[in-house]
Order: sequence, then structure tokens, then C-alpha cells
Amino acid sequence: MMNLGGPASLNKVYDFLCRLFSDREIIKLPFQKLAGPLLARRRTGHVQEQYAAIGGGSPILKWTNAQGEAMCKRLDELSPGTAPHKHLVAFRYAEPLTADALSTLSSSGITCAVAFTQYPQYSCTTTGSSLNELYRRIVASSKHVQNVSWSLIDRWSGNELLAKAFAKLIEEELKQYPEDKRAQVVLVFSAHSIPHRVVDCGDPYPAEVANTVHCVMQQLGHANPYRLVWQSKVGPLPWLGPKTWDSLVGLAKHGNKDAILIPIAFTSDHIETLYELDQTYMKDANEKLGMNVRRCKALNTEPIFIEALAQIVHAHLKSGDLSSKQYPLRCPGCTNEDCQRARDFFLSSDGQHH
Amino acid sequence: MMNLGGPASLNKVYDFLCRLFSDREIIKLPFQKLAGPLLARRRTGHVQEQYAAIGGGSPILKWTNAQGEAMCKRLDELSPGTAPHKHLVAFRYAEPLTADALSTLSSSGITCAVAFTQYPQYSCTTTGSSLNELYRRIVASSKHVQNVSWSLIDRWSGNELLAKAFAKLIEEELKQYPEDKRAQVVLVFSAHSIPHRVVDCGDPYPAEVANTVHCVMQQLGHANPYRLVWQSKVGPLPWLGPKTWDSLVGLAKHGNKDAILIPIAFTSDHIETLYELDQTYMKDANEKLGMNVRRCKALNTEPIFIEALAQIVHAHLKSGDLSSKQYPLRCPGCTNEDCQRARDFFLSSDGQHH
Repeated sequence: MMNLGGPASLNKVYDFLCRLFSDREIIKLPFQKLAGPLLARRRTGHVQEQYAAIGGGSPILKWTNAQGEAMCKRLDELSPGTAPHKHLVAFRYAEPLTADALSTLSSSGITCAVAFTQYPQYSCTTTGSSLNELYRRIVASSKHVQNVSWSLIDRWSGNELLAKAFAKLIEEELKQYPEDKRAQVVLVFSAHSIPHRVVDCGDPYPAEVANTVHCVMQQLGHANPYRLVWQSKVGPLPWLGPKTWDSLVGLAKHGNKDAILIPIAFTSDHIETLYELDQTYMKDANEKLGMNVRRCKALNTEPIFIEALAQIVHAHLKSGDLSSKQYPLRCPGCTNEDCQRARDFFLSSDGQHH
Repeated sequence: MMNLGGPASLNKVYDFLCRLFSDREIIKLPFQKLAGPLLARRRTGHVQEQYAAIGGGSPILKWTNAQGEAMCKRLDELSPGTAPHKHLVAFRYAEPLTADALSTLSSSGITCAVAFTQYPQYSCTTTGSSLNELYRRIVASSKHVQNVSWSLIDRWSGNELLAKAFAKLIEEELKQYPEDKRAQVVLVFSAHSIPHRVVDCGDPYPAEVANTVHCVMQQLGHANPYRLVWQSKVGPLPWLGPKTWDSLVGLAKHGNKDAILIPIAFTSDHIETLYELDQTYMKDANEKLGMNVRRCKALNTEPIFIEALAQIVHAHLKSGDLSSKQYPLRCPGCTNEDCQRARDFFLSSDGQHH
């Protein structure tokens, strides 16, 4: 189960940021080996304050383990032929890292592994970076790890149960508004933004996030007006817009006071929901813009979502596919040769020992 | 049936461009009343050459009339209770203009009209501009036009028959490739781009185009890799990317030689398919990049598409809805007060006299 991860405690914030700013698949800095740690050092205090405000660390490992255990339990029922199923966590920027997951794999005698991205929508900056890292770590690993049979679940933005899970949680928030106002509540789907530079390379992320939004709206019978907006931009370069906060300001200006913020590109709570959405945008909208904004709960261990995870893996195992049909196609503007190498590895017999 | 329209002959090119560059809902120029005609004058020769290369004029009126007649014939069968049905064409920048359509309406004794956008995906620069123009022209019209009962079909990006029609035409092109290469053919969905300025206001267009792409891919069983890319950028400002031509160059560089260009945001042939896709991108890709690119046919009078048009209107008439649930919500960054006025008009009793 691959995800970005988050610092478990305040003294892990620097290590987390340092790994993040050193990843050239997500951010490109001049003299990155020096500039990455320097930038991490400069931002550590600020980010520590945010983690302090949500209880002193990221809950992402707790949620991923809870999701993984529930998913495997259900998978053992759905697919007894491939049981027992076991989940491992591989975070990109926090422990347990990809190398940690491979070392557990190595000592466990596992022979068949599915790299299952926990980002429903594929981006080169998230799933792409995690898969490239996995490829690099596997080829640097012990013979046993190299002999494991790998396959990929690299995207699932249009999964029906995922949409149903979001729809259920949105309906729970809608019920908190008076019945006569409910149909006018604006659904503000908020996803982590990415730089225009990445979009212009052909990153499929914006279109896949839009796909999830429309699948959710279909489940809801298109009963409310909605917009897809983008949060968490950092740095001076142009990123995909409109921004979540600017959108709330605009909605308020037009008289749309009731809105639900929906974190559509994450599957569990973390700093972007608990701090950025809850403690900045929602709080400020309600206090300063006179709005009545609520935040849709994160998927976490919502039963329909656990069923989605189990069904996705079950369908994947039954299909025998090595990856989605989209994964083999690199972004048209891609110049990162690890993207080609990772594809060659996972899609050829090198990665497969069935 | 609202659409942008196109010049019927070469001597209409200036008038067409002049209306286009004077529309502040699509382009904002300093001193627009002077600058619009000036810019139109400067570009007329260049654009005339393109229309000359596709036969001397735009076929959009011919196609829209053919679609409208076939749709109404089918609607008379589907919905005898609301028959007879009659289509009128209202182009934004070419004859018949919105005012022409209203004058036909006025003399015909029609009492119930549906403003049906022929852009499946809503953008403020297309459907938004057409509806605002319709609102302005209605309130400036005769008492009879003002008493017509209006309702809107303002978007239909996720319509299943629309997706089926595209899927059928794509499958026809796929069959032109050898069977053993067919599954690797890249589907390049190409839509007209819009400026970042418009996207950043919260224009729903990019997400709605992505919705159509994913509906089509679902119909095709996700059997091919694909990308959504953007064409027809003009001017010096940044627009939504990646560009269609750059994407073909990138695909070729990565060894993806077989690709199908799919005009996903237009419903009939016009300059952007017949000239831009066919005579520049496809031609250059095949001649200069050694690719084997084909262009998916435009929907034109494809029977599944005609059925889609008729079913959309039929469902709309049955629902009694004045518009989609999305239309009432202005873009968060919108500062165009005509957007509010048009909504107030179409969604209140002023526009409704049932």
C-alpha cells in the first residue's frame, strides 16, 4: 500500500521534508542535494506548528494499517484461492519507507506482491514517483525480493464503490443542513494541486480527479451544484487552479453561503484535511465570510471504502493484468528515464516470475 | 441549437472574426470596440486561407441543420405529446445569429423553446456566452418572444449515448490498424483549449471534457492507452496544456507511432477538425514524425449521436427542469454581471410562462 506518508511525530518533520524536497520526481531544485535539505530546514518549524495543531503527528500510518488489515480480512473471504493476504505499507517520505517494506517482504517468504497505490488518481508526482522508487529499490535488493512476482494497481479513479463511499459521506454532511436549503449546498471537491509544468507534460491527474468527481456526482444523482478546486500550492511557480480558498471567497461573494469541502484525492485524514481544510479554510470561511461550510469526512475505515479496496485487489488478481492499460504510456512530455525503466521492469518478464 | 458557427463563405470571414473578437465573454482586449475589428482585419487573410483549404467555408450550418432535422423527426416519435418539434439554429458569431433565431421564433407562433447547447461540455466561453447573448436578445425582443416559455439544456458531457457514438467512431478507426498493433494505439482526445485565466475563475470545462473522455473510455472497456490534450491556443497568454501537437511529438519520441486524434469537444466537422487536425497535426505527424496517425470522424449525422440528441431533449422535456443543477452556480471567480442576470432570467418566472 503505497502513499506519501507523513511524520509520526514532530521530531520526524525534518526527515520527512528532507525526503520530499530531495525527490526530483516531485520538485526540481538547482543543486538539489544541497538545496533540498536546506529548504527542509527552513520550513521545518512552520510545518511542525501545523502537525502540533493536529495532535503532534500524521495519522496516515494508523489509518493505512487499519485499512490494510480490514481489506485483507475481506480479501481472504473474497479470494480464498490467493489467501492468506497480508498488507505492507510503503511510504515515499516517511517510515515505513519503500526499502522497509521490501526488507519485511524479503524476510517473510512472500512470492507474489501487488503494488497498490493509495492515490486513486494517478499523477507522476505521487503514484509515478512511488512506483519509480519501488523499481529502484527492488533492483537494488536481495535476490529473494527480485524473484517476487510483481503486479501494479496504479489507478482506480473511476471505481464505483469508491464513488459510493464518497457519496455516503457527503450525504451525511448534507443532512446537517436544514431540509429546505439542502439542494442548494455547493459541493466543493478539493484536490491537491500540481504545477502547470507537470500538467503540461501530460500528467493524467487533473482528468482522473475530474473522473472521480463525476462518478461521485452520478452516485448523488447530480442533486447539488459543485466545483472541482485545488489546494496546497507551494512555491512561486504557477499551479493548477482555481484555489480552494479563493473559490470559497468567490462563492460567498455570490451569496452561496452553504458549502461542503470534500477531500477527493486522499483516502485518509492527514495534514491537508485536518489542518489546511479544517483549521484554515473551513474555519476562516465560517468566521470571516459568514459561511456555513462543513468538511466531508475522509474515507478512513468507512466500510464501503474497505469493500472498494478489497474488490479492487480481488478484480486485479482475477484479471491477471500486470498494470492498467494506461500505465505503459509515458506522459508525452516526459524526460525522466526512470519512468521508462520502471515500466520496462514491471511490464516485462524481469518483473514477473509466475 | 446553439453553437459558435463558422463563416459560410470566404467573404464572411471578417464578419465572423469581428464578432468573435468583440465578445468580451471569450476574449478581453483593451479598447475592445476598436481593437476587436482591428484584430479581425489583421487575421482575416490568414483565416481565409484555412477556410479555402477546406472547401471555401465552414460546414457547421449544414451539419447542424441535418442534425436538427433528424433529431426532430425522432423526437416526434419519442414524445408525441410535445410534437411537432422544430429546430432553429442560433450561432454566436455567424448567421443565423441568436437575433435571427429569435426573429424566426417570433413569426412562427412557437410558445415553448429549449435552448439546447451543442457544446456537450459547459464553458463560460462557449455555452455561457451563448446563453448570456440569448438572454440579452430576448429582453430586447418583441413581446411574443418574451412570452415564450424557455428552458435550458446547458451541458451533457456524461451522456451515455454521446459516449457510445464516440466509441463506435473510434472503433472504426482502430480497425484500420493491424490486429496485433490495435491494443497499443494511443487514443489522443483533443479539445479546444481555454486560457488559464478562465480555468482559474472556476470554469467547469476542463473537468467536463475529462468526464466525456472517461465515459468514452468506459464504453471502450479501457482497452487502449489515452491522453486528453488541448488544441487551438491563440495569443500570447498561457492556456491549458498539454498542446495537441507537442503531445504527438512526445509520443513519437517515446516510440508510440500509432495514434488516433479524437475531437472530443465538437459535435460536427469544422475548421478545427478539417484544417487544424487533418491538414496540420495529422499530416505533419505522418510526414515528419513517421507516425501512423488517423483522425476519428466527427459525430455529424452518426445515428447513435442523433439518438443521443433526441433522447437528451426527450428526458429534458419529461423532467420539467429549467436547467441542469450546475447552471445556477456561477464560477467562483466570475465578475461578469450578465452571468447573474441571465441566470435570474432563465431560472425565475420572468423566463417562464407555462
